[in-house]
Amino acid sequence: MEKLIKGLRQFQSNYFDTHHELFEQLAHGQKPRVLFITCSDSRVDPNLITNAKVGELFVIRNAGNMIPPYGATNGGEGAALEYAVQALGIDQIIVCGHSNCGAMKGLLKLDKLREEMPLVYDWLLQAEATRRLVKENYSTLSGEELLNITIAENVLTQIENLRTYPVIHSKIRQGKLSLNAWVYQIDTGSVFAYDATRHEYVAPASPLQPLDPEELLPPSPGHPASWLSPEQADRIYRGSSTY
Amino acid sequence: MEKLIKGLRQFQSNYFDTHHELFEQLAHGQKPRVLFITCSDSRVDPNLITNAKVGELFVIRNAGNMIPPYGATNGGEGAALEYAVQALGIDQIIVCGHSNCGAMKGLLKLDKLREEMPLVYDWLLQAEATRRLVKENYSTLSGEELLNITIAENVLTQIENLRTYPVIHSKIRQGKLSLNAWVYQIDTGSVFAYDATRHEYVAPASPLQPLDPEELLPPSPGHPASWLSPEQADRIYRGSSTY
Amino acid sequence: MEKLIKGLRQFQSNYFDTHHELFEQLAHGQKPRVLFITCSDSRVDPNLITNAKVGELFVIRNAGNMIPPYGATNGGEGAALEYAVQALGIDQIIVCGHSNCGAMKGLLKLDKLREEMPLVYDWLLQAEATRRLVKENYSTLSGEELLNITIAENVLTQIENLRTYPVIHSKIRQGKLSLNAWVYQIDTGSVFAYDATRHEYVAPASPLQPLDPEELLPPSPGHPASWLSPEQADRIYRGSSTY
Amino acid sequence: MEKLIKGLRQFQSNYFDTHHELFEQLAHGQKPRVLFITCSDSRVDPNLITNAKVGELFVIRNAGNMIPPYGATNGGEGAALEYAVQALGIDQIIVCGHSNCGAMKGLLKLDKLREEMPLVYDWLLQAEATRRLVKENYSTLSGEELLNITIAENVLTQIENLRTYPVIHSKIRQGKLSLNAWVYQIDTGSVFAYDATRHEYVAPASPLQPLDPEELLPPSPGHPASWLSPEQADRIYRGSSTY
Repeated sequence: MEKLIKGLRQFQSNYFDTHHELFEQLAHGQKPRVLFITCSDSRVDPNLITNAKVGELFVIRNAGNMIPPYGATNGGEGAALEYAVQALGIDQIIVCGHSNCGAMKGLLKLDKLREEMPLVYDWLLQAEATRRLVKENYSTLSGEELLNITIAENVLTQIENLRTYPVIHSKIRQGKLSLNAWVYQIDTGSVFAYDATRHEYVAPASPLQPLDPEELLPPSPGHPASWLSPEQADRIYRGSSTY
Repeated sequence: MEKLIKGLRQFQSNYFDTHHELFEQLAHGQKPRVLFITCSDSRVDPNLITNAKVGELFVIRNAGNMIPPYGATNGGEGAALEYAVQALGIDQIIVCGHSNCGAMKGLLKLDKLREEMPLVYDWLLQAEATRRLVKENYSTLSGEELLNITIAENVLTQIENLRTYPVIHSKIRQGKLSLNAWVYQIDTGSVFAYDATRHEYVAPASPLQPLDPEELLPPSPGHPASWLSPEQADRIYRGSSTY
Repeated sequence: MEKLIKGLRQFQSNYFDTHHELFEQLAHGQKPRVLFITCSDSRVDPNLITNAKVGELFVIRNAGNMIPPYGATNGGEGAALEYAVQALGIDQIIVCGHSNCGAMKGLLKLDKLREEMPLVYDWLLQAEATRRLVKENYSTLSGEELLNITIAENVLTQIENLRTYPVIHSKIRQGKLSLNAWVYQIDTGSVFAYDATRHEYVAPASPLQPLDPEELLPPSPGHPASWLSPEQADRIYRGSSTY
Repeated sequence: MEKLIKGLRQFQSNYFDTHHELFEQLAHGQKPRVLFITCSDSRVDPNLITNAKVGELFVIRNAGNMIPPYGATNGGEGAALEYAVQALGIDQIIVCGHSNCGAMKGLLKLDKLREEMPLVYDWLLQAEATRRLVKENYSTLSGEELLNITIAENVLTQIENLRTYPVIHSKIRQGKLSLNAWVYQIDTGSVFAYDATRHEYVAPASPLQPLDPEELLPPSPGHPASWLSPEQADRIYRGSSTY
């Protein structure tokens, strides 16, 4: 706690005092263009990994970066996304999962949670669509491979759930909202985005602007272009037509 | 979106590549000591304002930094806090509200939200304890003063709600969990913490260690010691014994 | 009632007695290939309009041919579709709306139902995604045009909701399930199916077999090829990328 | 699917084109006199077995032809029946079960469904009244006999549940609504209706008009008068006064 309190002072001296104008501007309102939905996991820092400034990301965080289907729950998820889309006019939504996710590990051994963590158990029942899909489609996987697929598929499930929300359903029809599925790899610092045409997660490139010289660089060893092995990508997304 | 994607690259080159070891360590597990519950508002960046490193804060974010009482809702809040306390052994919880909060503005004009933002409306009904307390105890206030009090009181309401959760109720009895109420001022970069003995929000000081010389410095003009005026502090928290 | 009872006898003499074998076979089990979800409306007869034999369609019927998102309700919808997909191995789902739908009329004047028909009111709240989309995207329409669009959009909403069900989410990933959106026009006897590539409702043609000479016939005056006018089709489905 | 699409054309040419007037009339509204609640089972075709014309039956269909008690669920059942009684002024309700019902089979082995079909499991919990009654009153039965009793008793349970709905409760007091329990035998094409005075299911006869000569005919071998054996009928319905 002391550390945090020291941190508050450090923030004031080191950052705030040199970004005065930005904060003065922000004091009266926010204009984020992106709704970032990610896990509560301490290793995920949205502003850090996207190098976004204060005021750019409206953030929802919970265990497993989940947004249950419209009407299934009455927690903070629906209200926050409705506020983001309706009141703030946000036009990009990113659901970002991450490697080594505790919630997804829990999803793969659900029964064991029931007694010790009943709220986590109940919450993970909201991810039944992910659990079932993985169980029926990836029965040959295990260990880390299985966890990675679960993390990846779970983000896609949440994208599907997002579509059932009235404000999102309507705004997509207007062509004014895009949904993006990301997975953040903690050990490599890479982020992969799901490409709906190729049906696989790849290192993201901008779809709207000519590629930046920076973005033309070939993937470096520590930062691979595709997250899952070719066999996995092939076996897994073959025939997928939902996203 | 392109900006964010550029940002991902910048993160990799500028931060990740120079913090390799930290991320390698984190790849296999997290050991945060603090559960930070704050608003989805884009102007709040938990790691930034506490100068915390990746891996230090387990974060829940929703509209209005709210945690409804145990059993009232089935969204992600309960599961995330249960996981934090039970699985991660976290012993500090901070609920952090902030100035100019959209959710609290909404709370003060609830009826107007019903048609346009029904999910936000329903979610804010969870903050009825705050709304009613403010209505009945601060009827003379208006404008920004009223909003500030609502933000401040709302954080205290959430602290009270947190106590109703089984894992928290039990751990507090063991003397192993502390709950903290903070309010972050966007325009000054200051954070105020509720002091239960003095019944008011003050600039935070460490309760457990001898004060650091740094923390003995008097508050500078831009960083006042107390957030609310003496009259407000007095009138408002007189006799309050809930916290 | 007498009429119905006479009808039972007529069925036995006229139909049953001449289809003995079929019913003997069916007595021990069913093997429908299609799940047909349509309105309770008395003017819709699934087996009649598809000329399907007994045993071919597994049918769910409720007011407004609605399937709320997974987890939103605990009525018969989820169980019936789960049984259809999981136990019966059904691989085609058709959601069929119809012209002059009373539930959709109710959706367009929701407040008026609250007192007289509270259950209908509550049920139609499940169609909020349809209501909102229509309100925000088709504000220039009124009367029958507005009702027709609402009926059409509502079927698409239900398709989206269907995807959130675990058994459906998983089976689609396996490439073994197709979802179809139909609208039945009572006054012309025509059925239009939504074509995801063209983003509009058209007279259905088989996608998998070479066209039957019968299906090559040009649409006759009483049976138009496209249900909505070209202007409507254009304005309405422009930019739609969800289905 | 192709078959169905062909069927759509056949319907238009064979039936619609020769029943123009009927459909023109129906295009503007429906006036069904009967609410028919039956199973989603593909082998049940309400209009076929009652020889009813399009427009005569308002139909609700789900797994097990169930209507949970008022307030127990928020699916489509309540809304559809409320609309039928309140908006359409329907005065006859028929709940029609059928032989070899999969839902009732499931009810007799509930635990086995939990993992594979959780939604069916949850839905069948709504039929606990049937399950318990059968377990405690028919413990000597097994196999097909047990299934038949369960099907029969389940329909009676639903009749009881129907009475708990406000619109039905009220209309029955006005003497303007009758509830009927039917069971349809797929292998014989017979339908049996519960006779409250005799406490057994018998071949239905009109209660309101002098019997039609047709209805005076003795039951033929393939179409028995009573569905259950005399011993069953006696043992089972003795003293039953609920209906």
